[in-house]
Amino acid sequence: MRPQEIIEKKRDGHLLSTGEIDAFVHGVCDGSWADYQISALVMAMFIRGLSSDESSDLTRSMLYSGEVLDFSDIEAPKADKHSTGGVGDKTSLIVAPLAAACGLVVPMISGRGLGHTGGTLDKLESVAGYNVNLTTEEFRSTLNECGFAMAGQTADIAPADRKIYALRDATATVPYIPLIVASIMSKKLAEGLDALVLDVKTGSGAFMQKLDDSRHLAGELVAAGKSFGVKVEAVISDMDRPLGTWVGNAVEVFECIEILRGNVAGSARNTYLLSLELTSRMLVLSGISPDVDSATALADSKLSSGEALERLRHNIEIQGGDPTVCDEPRKLFSDKLLKFEVKAESDGFIASIDTLAVGNVIVTLGGGRVRAEDSIDYAVGFSSDACVGDEVRAGDPLGHIHCRTELQIDSIRECSRSFFHIDPAKPQGIPALIREIVS
Amino acid sequence: MRPQEIIEKKRDGHLLSTGEIDAFVHGVCDGSWADYQISALVMAMFIRGLSSDESSDLTRSMLYSGEVLDFSDIEAPKADKHSTGGVGDKTSLIVAPLAAACGLVVPMISGRGLGHTGGTLDKLESVAGYNVNLTTEEFRSTLNECGFAMAGQTADIAPADRKIYALRDATATVPYIPLIVASIMSKKLAEGLDALVLDVKTGSGAFMQKLDDSRHLAGELVAAGKSFGVKVEAVISDMDRPLGTWVGNAVEVFECIEILRGNVAGSARNTYLLSLELTSRMLVLSGISPDVDSATALADSKLSSGEALERLRHNIEIQGGDPTVCDEPRKLFSDKLLKFEVKAESDGFIASIDTLAVGNVIVTLGGGRVRAEDSIDYAVGFSSDACVGDEVRAGDPLGHIHCRTELQIDSIRECSRSFFHIDPAKPQGIPALIREIVS
Repeated sequence: MRPQEIIEKKRDGHLLSTGEIDAFVHGVCDGSWADYQISALVMAMFIRGLSSDESSDLTRSMLYSGEVLDFSDIEAPKADKHSTGGVGDKTSLIVAPLAAACGLVVPMISGRGLGHTGGTLDKLESVAGYNVNLTTEEFRSTLNECGFAMAGQTADIAPADRKIYALRDATATVPYIPLIVASIMSKKLAEGLDALVLDVKTGSGAFMQKLDDSRHLAGELVAAGKSFGVKVEAVISDMDRPLGTWVGNAVEVFECIEILRGNVAGSARNTYLLSLELTSRMLVLSGISPDVDSATALADSKLSSGEALERLRHNIEIQGGDPTVCDEPRKLFSDKLLKFEVKAESDGFIASIDTLAVGNVIVTLGGGRVRAEDSIDYAVGFSSDACVGDEVRAGDPLGHIHCRTELQIDSIRECSRSFFHIDPAKPQGIPALIREIVS
Repeated sequence: MRPQEIIEKKRDGHLLSTGEIDAFVHGVCDGSWADYQISALVMAMFIRGLSSDESSDLTRSMLYSGEVLDFSDIEAPKADKHSTGGVGDKTSLIVAPLAAACGLVVPMISGRGLGHTGGTLDKLESVAGYNVNLTTEEFRSTLNECGFAMAGQTADIAPADRKIYALRDATATVPYIPLIVASIMSKKLAEGLDALVLDVKTGSGAFMQKLDDSRHLAGELVAAGKSFGVKVEAVISDMDRPLGTWVGNAVEVFECIEILRGNVAGSARNTYLLSLELTSRMLVLSGISPDVDSATALADSKLSSGEALERLRHNIEIQGGDPTVCDEPRKLFSDKLLKFEVKAESDGFIASIDTLAVGNVIVTLGGGRVRAEDSIDYAVGFSSDACVGDEVRAGDPLGHIHCRTELQIDSIRECSRSFFHIDPAKPQGIPALIREIVS
């Protein structure tokens, strides 16, 4: 069937058959569909819509366009979490070792940062020597040795998604839920999981800014996972402020190691709480714990005992990184950086933090990417030293930025003044960190 | 402005500004828009629609994306005709020399055949030596010498259209009227014309099969031309049967030369009548003749006197072809061909001719193109020796096919049986050759 015939059908608002969707996905993988034909069909899908059958056909076809890992020889339940992306969203570095310490096996395939949101692979690479490019065999042996492995998507995992996503990014067709679901689930279901917890962000720093949209996405992701026989739950969490204290790369690893060392202070508390929530739900879905309360108690005990930190140390050793960062996390800071203080502009209460602006400033400083091929300055970062709801006085230090040059400071000085919105009146309530659970 | 922002706007059904449409067309020409971004926007335009302001912005921007010829130094009025394409549609080869013989200057830029419809350039190239690749200077001097020139679109004429059209063909976005209008008019208006007559085909062998659609396209083309100050009229003509006797390349040139030599017989009469109609309307629009009747009389006299044939001979000489075909048109036939007779399947009256099937058989035999890069066998062809309305008996020869091999005959034998639809009852009426005039 010629690409034009399939494109024409969706162009005119008709349903595509399973065979037609397969022909499209195969054509993407074998190169018989040109990029401009892929993008024309994706635009037609975006505008005309995909039915629930079409969406699930697309996910399935993209999943089986590549290798689907099989860890059935490992006895322990396999579980993972996936976040839709945010600013300071660093829970993977805590959840993976913590879940492993509780008895799960976590085959975590992660991505890189793009735009204002960060990526786990970039954060991991800020640990000197850490290797995220594992072969399937290295990935498997790492899982066997320390209970979790963290790596990038190989060329064999969902190859159709890699190409389609790059084209969507360039053709304004990213924000359509069936395409998002197919993209996320075709990668995550390739991990050979028993259970998956989704962290769907909502708010100004998230991809979905409205709770309704996040709820809709969460529902579709859960339904897609279930249709493949995987136990799935989604946590809708707040992205109206950066998660935790630090935003950047090395600095986020620092925050995670501090939490795994038992040092949870101030704004870092949200990182700790969300990590615990996600881990607990993975434990319940996998049948390790009977309910969330006991799962939380189990996870908290593995964190307090230092077992989760030891898992991370072991993983860093296996994946080639410098494990001494677990003992001396300050090593992750460069002493060559300049510090710029962000001060309160007026007296009052911190009403909110402009999360998108914070994310974009990190990109401006080189800590994130505008284009997929951009390189990253792992050291730069922003620290939020005050919390939403705190009472402050004009001139109080609320946060600080680590960067390289005075020129950089000049470029972000004005913008950083509006990071913290200060209200003269005490806020009526602080938005909950965890908004909803979708299961 | 990034391509994504413009694509997003049309994706969501908003109007694009003049500046945004210019940015798109410039991006197409300078390569800053990737093919997949062009095709994504074109698909969004197709589905969401273009307003009349957007359409006219697109035509203008595409026109001025390249060279606009200026023949204002030539005193005679400049006029051309353009056909939306059909099967056996060969009038250009008569209209151009005939209009020139009547005092017009005809700067005709033509295209090649694609799919089941033929192209003037291919037909011209079936005359040994004929060169359709003229520089602007050669084009101008040919015009000055014999009153008409026939050439392909240079790289400098409407370069945006060349790229956009190729992508539309590959992405199922051809049949949308504002895109068709922009494509046709950005090329035709670049010819520096005073007047333009459009031959909009309607019927089974046309691009627009329904009269309503053809009428709509004709109206939009006329409006677009007028908005640029060119006198325009459209003739809606029948394409429910092939035009005239022959379908192919060399064989169509043969038919035209025979008509210019005064030999109009049988089914070739429609080629003669439509050519006369189009020429007459060019003469009236340009002010050479006061009305269609006197224009027709003038044109007919220039045909009978042999002046039109002399124009063609002169043009073939100048453009490097073998002018003796004007004296011995049989030279255009190859004696190496096999002839296959198409016979009546039953007694009755010829109700219609399956025009699309005839066009497709010519493509199958190598006389047309599936892809733009295919080469052409100029010699193959089909001749319709009977007319719609003729009474026939089973076994009567109705037409014949010229081809190369017995294998080709086997491949088209079955299909050719349904070329002529025979009805036992006498048809109530024969569809008019000229359906409507839109001005």
